[in-house]
Amino acid sequence: MKNTFGNSVAVTLFGESHGEYIGATIDGLAPGIEVNHEYISHMLTLRRPAGKISTPRKEKDQYRIVSGLVNGRTTGTPLTVLIPNENVKSGDYVQMQTLARPSHADYTADCKYHGFQDTRGGGHFSGRITAALVAAGAICRYALEQKGICIGTHVKRCAGISDREFTDLASDIKKVNEKIFAVLDEARGKEMQEAILAAASDGDSVGGVLETAVIGMPKGVGEPWFDTVEGLLSHMMFSIPAVKGMEFGAGFAIADMRGSMANDPFRMKEGQVVSGSNNNGGINGGITNGMPVIFRTAIKPTPTIFRQQDTVDFRSMSDAVLLPKGRHDPAIVHRARVVQDAATAIVLCDALALRYGTDWLK
Amino acid sequence: MKNTFGNSVAVTLFGESHGEYIGATIDGLAPGIEVNHEYISHMLTLRRPAGKISTPRKEKDQYRIVSGLVNGRTTGTPLTVLIPNENVKSGDYVQMQTLARPSHADYTADCKYHGFQDTRGGGHFSGRITAALVAAGAICRYALEQKGICIGTHVKRCAGISDREFTDLASDIKKVNEKIFAVLDEARGKEMQEAILAAASDGDSVGGVLETAVIGMPKGVGEPWFDTVEGLLSHMMFSIPAVKGMEFGAGFAIADMRGSMANDPFRMKEGQVVSGSNNNGGINGGITNGMPVIFRTAIKPTPTIFRQQDTVDFRSMSDAVLLPKGRHDPAIVHRARVVQDAATAIVLCDALALRYGTDWLK
Amino acid sequence: MKNTFGNSVAVTLFGESHGEYIGATIDGLAPGIEVNHEYISHMLTLRRPAGKISTPRKEKDQYRIVSGLVNGRTTGTPLTVLIPNENVKSGDYVQMQTLARPSHADYTADCKYHGFQDTRGGGHFSGRITAALVAAGAICRYALEQKGICIGTHVKRCAGISDREFTDLASDIKKVNEKIFAVLDEARGKEMQEAILAAASDGDSVGGVLETAVIGMPKGVGEPWFDTVEGLLSHMMFSIPAVKGMEFGAGFAIADMRGSMANDPFRMKEGQVVSGSNNNGGINGGITNGMPVIFRTAIKPTPTIFRQQDTVDFRSMSDAVLLPKGRHDPAIVHRARVVQDAATAIVLCDALALRYGTDWLK
Amino acid sequence: MKNTFGNSVAVTLFGESHGEYIGATIDGLAPGIEVNHEYISHMLTLRRPAGKISTPRKEKDQYRIVSGLVNGRTTGTPLTVLIPNENVKSGDYVQMQTLARPSHADYTADCKYHGFQDTRGGGHFSGRITAALVAAGAICRYALEQKGICIGTHVKRCAGISDREFTDLASDIKKVNEKIFAVLDEARGKEMQEAILAAASDGDSVGGVLETAVIGMPKGVGEPWFDTVEGLLSHMMFSIPAVKGMEFGAGFAIADMRGSMANDPFRMKEGQVVSGSNNNGGINGGITNGMPVIFRTAIKPTPTIFRQQDTVDFRSMSDAVLLPKGRHDPAIVHRARVVQDAATAIVLCDALALRYGTDWLK
Repeated sequence: MKNTFGNSVAVTLFGESHGEYIGATIDGLAPGIEVNHEYISHMLTLRRPAGKISTPRKEKDQYRIVSGLVNGRTTGTPLTVLIPNENVKSGDYVQMQTLARPSHADYTADCKYHGFQDTRGGGHFSGRITAALVAAGAICRYALEQKGICIGTHVKRCAGISDREFTDLASDIKKVNEKIFAVLDEARGKEMQEAILAAASDGDSVGGVLETAVIGMPKGVGEPWFDTVEGLLSHMMFSIPAVKGMEFGAGFAIADMRGSMANDPFRMKEGQVVSGSNNNGGINGGITNGMPVIFRTAIKPTPTIFRQQDTVDFRSMSDAVLLPKGRHDPAIVHRARVVQDAATAIVLCDALALRYGTDWLK
Repeated sequence: MKNTFGNSVAVTLFGESHGEYIGATIDGLAPGIEVNHEYISHMLTLRRPAGKISTPRKEKDQYRIVSGLVNGRTTGTPLTVLIPNENVKSGDYVQMQTLARPSHADYTADCKYHGFQDTRGGGHFSGRITAALVAAGAICRYALEQKGICIGTHVKRCAGISDREFTDLASDIKKVNEKIFAVLDEARGKEMQEAILAAASDGDSVGGVLETAVIGMPKGVGEPWFDTVEGLLSHMMFSIPAVKGMEFGAGFAIADMRGSMANDPFRMKEGQVVSGSNNNGGINGGITNGMPVIFRTAIKPTPTIFRQQDTVDFRSMSDAVLLPKGRHDPAIVHRARVVQDAATAIVLCDALALRYGTDWLK
Repeated sequence: MKNTFGNSVAVTLFGESHGEYIGATIDGLAPGIEVNHEYISHMLTLRRPAGKISTPRKEKDQYRIVSGLVNGRTTGTPLTVLIPNENVKSGDYVQMQTLARPSHADYTADCKYHGFQDTRGGGHFSGRITAALVAAGAICRYALEQKGICIGTHVKRCAGISDREFTDLASDIKKVNEKIFAVLDEARGKEMQEAILAAASDGDSVGGVLETAVIGMPKGVGEPWFDTVEGLLSHMMFSIPAVKGMEFGAGFAIADMRGSMANDPFRMKEGQVVSGSNNNGGINGGITNGMPVIFRTAIKPTPTIFRQQDTVDFRSMSDAVLLPKGRHDPAIVHRARVVQDAATAIVLCDALALRYGTDWLK
Repeated sequence: MKNTFGNSVAVTLFGESHGEYIGATIDGLAPGIEVNHEYISHMLTLRRPAGKISTPRKEKDQYRIVSGLVNGRTTGTPLTVLIPNENVKSGDYVQMQTLARPSHADYTADCKYHGFQDTRGGGHFSGRITAALVAAGAICRYALEQKGICIGTHVKRCAGISDREFTDLASDIKKVNEKIFAVLDEARGKEMQEAILAAASDGDSVGGVLETAVIGMPKGVGEPWFDTVEGLLSHMMFSIPAVKGMEFGAGFAIADMRGSMANDPFRMKEGQVVSGSNNNGGINGGITNGMPVIFRTAIKPTPTIFRQQDTVDFRSMSDAVLLPKGRHDPAIVHRARVVQDAATAIVLCDALALRYGTDWLK
């Protein structure tokens, strides 16, 4: 469906980095869901750049919900959130209209849109668009929390430095959701931020790994061919700019295990089926098994760096040299974390609504 | 869309391991595509178990195309391929009807289908279903080859042993496509097969990593939000049983790089835009850039092993012990490779048909 | 979605008139639905030609359900029904490969499929394909009946002769469902059949109007933009060959009414909201209101007639004259009636599953 | 897809009658399409109430395109149009929050949304929402015109008075597109308007029939099962409030014809295949045949009338009497005509993009 994701609950994104508005429309939300503005604003704050480790572009993200909301609750009809773009400096991007930033979408956008794409600030390919995804996802996420389904993401790795593992998920999720720079081990978080600053001072950028945990997810959700929970989540996550890998449970490490080690033995606990280990990340055969859903994404270093790079001018079709200006992040992994939370919430709402009907989330 | 994948070209899978037929329907194929039976049979042969490193269950896979085909060419209306299940021993599976094989779909299928699922041989969750996917995908793959788009997958890693890297893609793709056990370095392949046999003799299983390369893919294919080429491919690949991770280009390794190293500088070569490195796996902003599309999947070790394992009886809801019988593979990574090729072909046909219309593939 | 209809419950049709099989795959059926073979066979019997008012082509319609069924109940995974084509006389159709039957799909199929379409017996455009739709729909329809949702269709009009109006819906639906030639007034039915025979003896054909009633439909089902119950039903019905019109409630007659006459006043009856009249056919704003859903389709006269007609040869692009041979119906309205029932059942299952979740129909 | 229509080109509607904005997002438009603001404004003017035959609610419809547009041309990424609601008088609707207007969506909305729906002015069910559909459709319609595909709709019938038939389609389409009250025979148009005023003076309303013609449509567009051109158009049209019937070509009248009269004989004309009559409305087997596409919709009289009506209070579940206030139209058929044009344009763009790819419309 191209620019709409989901069937029972569906989200459509629109807007460009330097356009009048970015926005999202969510269709299929149950009627009567409480929309918590404080919660949404907090999510947007977590996504917004902060301090020296992020772009100096500051947006207030004064979102407005212009449809689908009455008296603080969803109506059940499409809900549209608009976020105005205010702090726009398009002049910075003039050069990029024909010089392709390596590893960014400038060139591929031109291949696809034949020069008609909005090139200002990356246009529709800008990370800016994720603010609308976060606002839409925050509504879903808050609704899921009222049902006992909680999502949390930490910076598992950044600039080669690793955070500690998730241990007690309920408290760890709570912990990371309160932080701007979401790590479980504060000391490692400081190291990561220093590494980001070090890269920034070199005009360079760094990447990382985000790890998400979902607890409280009902068992029996997902479809075998082709709407597995893994397939739906990855379909969504690869839309988040910079994601280049996705793994569930033990992920790529499981490839080196033997079955006797990789298998998650089931056992009964307080009348519920649980598994001793969780190498499958809470999903067997594409369907949730009631254990926490665990996955990780690989976030590439921000492609826009302040160093001279070889590239091409795709209008004149000739070799060129690029030295970007503009406002860019030396890392986005810490900001992408709340985008990943929001995107996860949307996918889960869709899968749950298919399973339990359009009123389930109420 | 649950059990249908794709929009412009769509495939629907049906069938169970021990049912009368498994099958696939492909809708949206251009009219006039040559259907090469030798090619399809060869693909099915590559998927079929062979020798001691695979299950002793042998199926002839005498597929029949019962619709959408006239005089050896597609009609443009839905093409259905049926494959009879002939070598069926359901008795082996009686035990599994209520004892959940750890890390298999027995328990989650019961959660979802409330005891009505077909439990014989894994039912609809069996790897057997991939034969239908391979037959359908083989038609797409052959059509893509006529357009110069070639796909090849090798066993990048198995039981902890690594194959060599892809070097010359055109010749490497040709090479792996001729092999039953698809490695680039024959010596490493022998080591892998010995490791599989060693695991089998322990009643155990091993996993691995599959790496796929696609050359000849037109640039400008894919959508930003949400039908990125990465999102579409991963959505499909996670349906293949045992896939627990997916990465593009440098994948998870890119997370530890700096931008200056990770970025793929563009340059002109013979009038075409190419990139010096390909850490993005041929995709920027979700859209193909004309470079080879490269991705890897993590394949977990076969969950069914011949060792005693703790589990639960999900009917009596009590702890239990499982010692599986039946016919199972000590590894499936080498068989999954052609499934991955076929699945890739289907996804690319869909994305290309959206871009260029329903007649493009003709 | 082209050749798949539905989201939560989806049906895919495949096959050609003279191919090996025609068939249908239904995805999204709740697990545990009883599949009543006697019921399905009866529906197929109603669709099959009978006596002189239909084509002499006789098919046993020995359908087989090859997936998604265990112990007489649906598994919840895709259910595929196959119907072999046995009584095939392709020779009759040789002439039609390039001579377009007026008002049939021969020419448009050629425009779309560039000569690769299966022309034998109308190929994928043959009314024969509706047998698969009937088999799939019969499963849905039987499941709906267990939930108290009953569907019935009568030949409201044929060859200019009108049946009486529906009066007591529950008994009228029961009545028409027991008949081969589904009329409420037997005398009018005889007149219609005589008119069909009269047309047949002239080498000509007649059309008619089918009226469907659904009772027991829950209120609150349907979506405002764009999946109205009217929109979903009409989308499906216009796929039935020969349907050229669709109207709900008072239909086109409402256009000449004033609001004061057209409006259906609500009132309470035994604690339920009912309406005094039902000019809206049980649907307001695209959503069911709990009153019977009533609609009518216009069925054109069978286009294939045994009279000389002007046409073109679309291969040589020249004027031509056609005198069809083969086996054709002088009317299909009486046979299409059970197709309309089946198609209705599929659409309602889809809308209900979206509303109440995938288990609702169980 | 509920509140999104289309696959290759898709439109999502949002907003409520008295909300801040109504709007539409179109996804899949080819890049580089000229957006003609004068044209869009003209379409919105045709939809806006005018004179005494319409509601006194006046909206300027100062639409803004906030995404997907650069330098007057589409970018190829989602285009969102917003229309502010300015002239809002919610007080008028307070009574309706629990008293169901007969034949309106008040009661069914409550069934579906459990009291959380926006009841002000009909909320998401208001005809007001069609302004967003018109704006989105106007972009599509203008693009189609550049390709030689022209759409025109006239008031075929209103209050029992009939306009003349379409004769010369090219000039008739041009003629009706220039008129506010779209009739071919001006005298009949005057009679209709007088009949509307007469009904209004009785506090009553009237309905009518709209007839649409499309010329220049390529042949070979549409799908047999299930995305017939008839099915797609009707799916869309039944979303337009008040539409209760849809027929193509001769429509319901074809039901009384014999095949020899109903069939459209083909013949060659200037190297093209044409048909002598067009009882099939330009569509055979669900696929366009190159002849004009002709269809009619039945528009019911506006349900909101200024006469006392029996109804229920759906909160207290008791009988009640309703005497509506507010601003309402004694007829909407003349305003709905441009909605039908716009809706048609969206459907055709979707079907054409599937056929010819995402760049076709450029």
